[in-house]
Amino acid sequence: MSMLPPPARIGAPLDEVETPALIVDLDVLEKNVGRMAEVTARAQVAFRPHSKTHKSTSIAHMQIAAGAVGICCQKVSEAEIMVNGGVGDVLVANEIVGSSKLARLAALARRAKISVCVDHLQNVRDLERAAAEAGAHLHVLVELDVGGRRCGVQSPDQAVDLAKEITASGHLSFAGLQAYHGGAQHIRTHEERGEAIGQAASKVRAARDALARAAVPCPTITGAGTGSFEFEIASEIYTELQAGSYVFMDRDYKLNQPGNVSRMDFEQSLFILTTIMSRPLPERIVIDAGLKSYSTDSGPPEVAGMPGLQVERASDEHGIIMLADPNALFSIGEKLRLVPGHCDPTVNLHDWFVCVRSERVEALWPVSARGAIF
Amino acid sequence: MSMLPPPARIGAPLDEVETPALIVDLDVLEKNVGRMAEVTARAQVAFRPHSKTHKSTSIAHMQIAAGAVGICCQKVSEAEIMVNGGVGDVLVANEIVGSSKLARLAALARRAKISVCVDHLQNVRDLERAAAEAGAHLHVLVELDVGGRRCGVQSPDQAVDLAKEITASGHLSFAGLQAYHGGAQHIRTHEERGEAIGQAASKVRAARDALARAAVPCPTITGAGTGSFEFEIASEIYTELQAGSYVFMDRDYKLNQPGNVSRMDFEQSLFILTTIMSRPLPERIVIDAGLKSYSTDSGPPEVAGMPGLQVERASDEHGIIMLADPNALFSIGEKLRLVPGHCDPTVNLHDWFVCVRSERVEALWPVSARGAIF
Repeated sequence: MSMLPPPARIGAPLDEVETPALIVDLDVLEKNVGRMAEVTARAQVAFRPHSKTHKSTSIAHMQIAAGAVGICCQKVSEAEIMVNGGVGDVLVANEIVGSSKLARLAALARRAKISVCVDHLQNVRDLERAAAEAGAHLHVLVELDVGGRRCGVQSPDQAVDLAKEITASGHLSFAGLQAYHGGAQHIRTHEERGEAIGQAASKVRAARDALARAAVPCPTITGAGTGSFEFEIASEIYTELQAGSYVFMDRDYKLNQPGNVSRMDFEQSLFILTTIMSRPLPERIVIDAGLKSYSTDSGPPEVAGMPGLQVERASDEHGIIMLADPNALFSIGEKLRLVPGHCDPTVNLHDWFVCVRSERVEALWPVSARGAIF
Repeated sequence: MSMLPPPARIGAPLDEVETPALIVDLDVLEKNVGRMAEVTARAQVAFRPHSKTHKSTSIAHMQIAAGAVGICCQKVSEAEIMVNGGVGDVLVANEIVGSSKLARLAALARRAKISVCVDHLQNVRDLERAAAEAGAHLHVLVELDVGGRRCGVQSPDQAVDLAKEITASGHLSFAGLQAYHGGAQHIRTHEERGEAIGQAASKVRAARDALARAAVPCPTITGAGTGSFEFEIASEIYTELQAGSYVFMDRDYKLNQPGNVSRMDFEQSLFILTTIMSRPLPERIVIDAGLKSYSTDSGPPEVAGMPGLQVERASDEHGIIMLADPNALFSIGEKLRLVPGHCDPTVNLHDWFVCVRSERVEALWPVSARGAIF
């Protein structure tokens, strides 16, 4: 349990921040938040951003103030932190199993509007028992596997069976369909991403039609991510979007090819500030940020504003950057900003967002739900 | 800044631990600690285990009680936590740059024996100034690049120049050579690992001989990791070993080929406990542990005790395991133990070690220096 001090003081110039540090450019963050609010309002879909990206009650409240109906999270512990932090409407966009976790979820539903996903009959029964024991009410969505090959029912019939069971449960209400296609988010071409979401939308349509035939009302169809949300909007079947990464963006999203509104309209607001700690050879610089400062699951970080420069090798506490030009001017002690490969697991490594405007620290926000995995 | 509760209570059976959780098998941990103490004592080399693996003052004290002379760490913030936790002798096995960090390091040196590495002349001067201002004394080692292609001087002459500058500094003393070959740790064959450390030892010998010619005493030659320490012992030039991962082990070390004492003598003590949350198809199980519960930089985790079963795909909060046998008996709610690919960055994701003996929780240890990256 960390009680680490923040790596900066409010009012300090950026250059005085201790490194490595997680930096947020507030101007860009605010612009990204506003832009998504505008896009979703214009499309007349509800927006429920995924808080697993930022794990921050501060940013969740900023999104809600801009019009979001609530937030998504993945874990009961994240939901607890968000509700404790004043968020009143949380969708756990995931299956929750085990009596202890279900009891915690039901307890939370006495204090906020809580929704959760299911893909198995026994899970519905367990949810009903937990909600009954807590004297609480849970909103339950059926998750469809729309191509992500993760959780979710495989057929419209399964969805109808679960929806009926939910509807017949005294402490549950059927809230609709969870239909997120994670695998589509980083398909590089605009066209192929569109095709993947087109196929997802077909599966959603089949499930919705089956529910209609069974006379089960389906109020919400929710899903979409930063790489795909324009296609979920275009499908006209989704009623709610869940994009999260748009607040920060990352290198992996930047590698998506143009023609994509999310690539074109959102800018990088999240950086790792790092210091050059060694230059043992003219062509090799070593930075003080490694695997414990950024995730590499979606590729290494690149140096912001310096095309072609990226971390070539990373160990726990070091990053190696090779210089094509051995005469390039880089000094020990100099600071660089890195664009992480994947924003979500990178944020989860840090305790503090150092929020910067005009090269000064304007705020320090805790990463409220960092490490909240259970 | 996390204030997360532990995922278990002391005395509970393993099956009641909330998942995902970081589990330590205390019997195996104690055996590993004892075994390394025995090996290093027999070899008559000092042992200074690297605490970047466990980030735990509890385990550091266990190692010291078994005979370790002190510990290594990588960051000033880690050193602060270790000294605050009662560890009296800390080597920051890394270069530290920047006036603020050096001031913190020097302040710490008033309360404990602190050693640090350098590979650049200006850094020696900055260390001297910081130590003088704090009225403190720092022990300084020159880092050699012995093949890891990270930090470190490239030639014996550079090492001598730095050692002389250190010796001439009023608040510093020259403590010896830091000579760790990170890249050698996971070379798969015993023979090639031996060759890599043989080459490292040649570089160390050249630097030591150059220091002797310059009449600069070199009290300590320190380095080695869990994959290579038998070769540093065999070289007879290293006076101190720094292995860290041996306490836990991981899948990457297990993939090192036999013939290696570290593979043969140390067993897996660290696991991620996870729950099956979905089985949407007979051949696909989904677990509740993903990229925020284990690092994948050195490959995915495997399922302990179930050869051939590993996490095929991981997203932030999910792991996908494909079953060759669709009739295999795995139920939703069932718990599995994962062996992580890389122990150090996996531990750094968690706030608590859940320490288990005979299938019961015996202790809860905070991961004291989790997130201490600056």
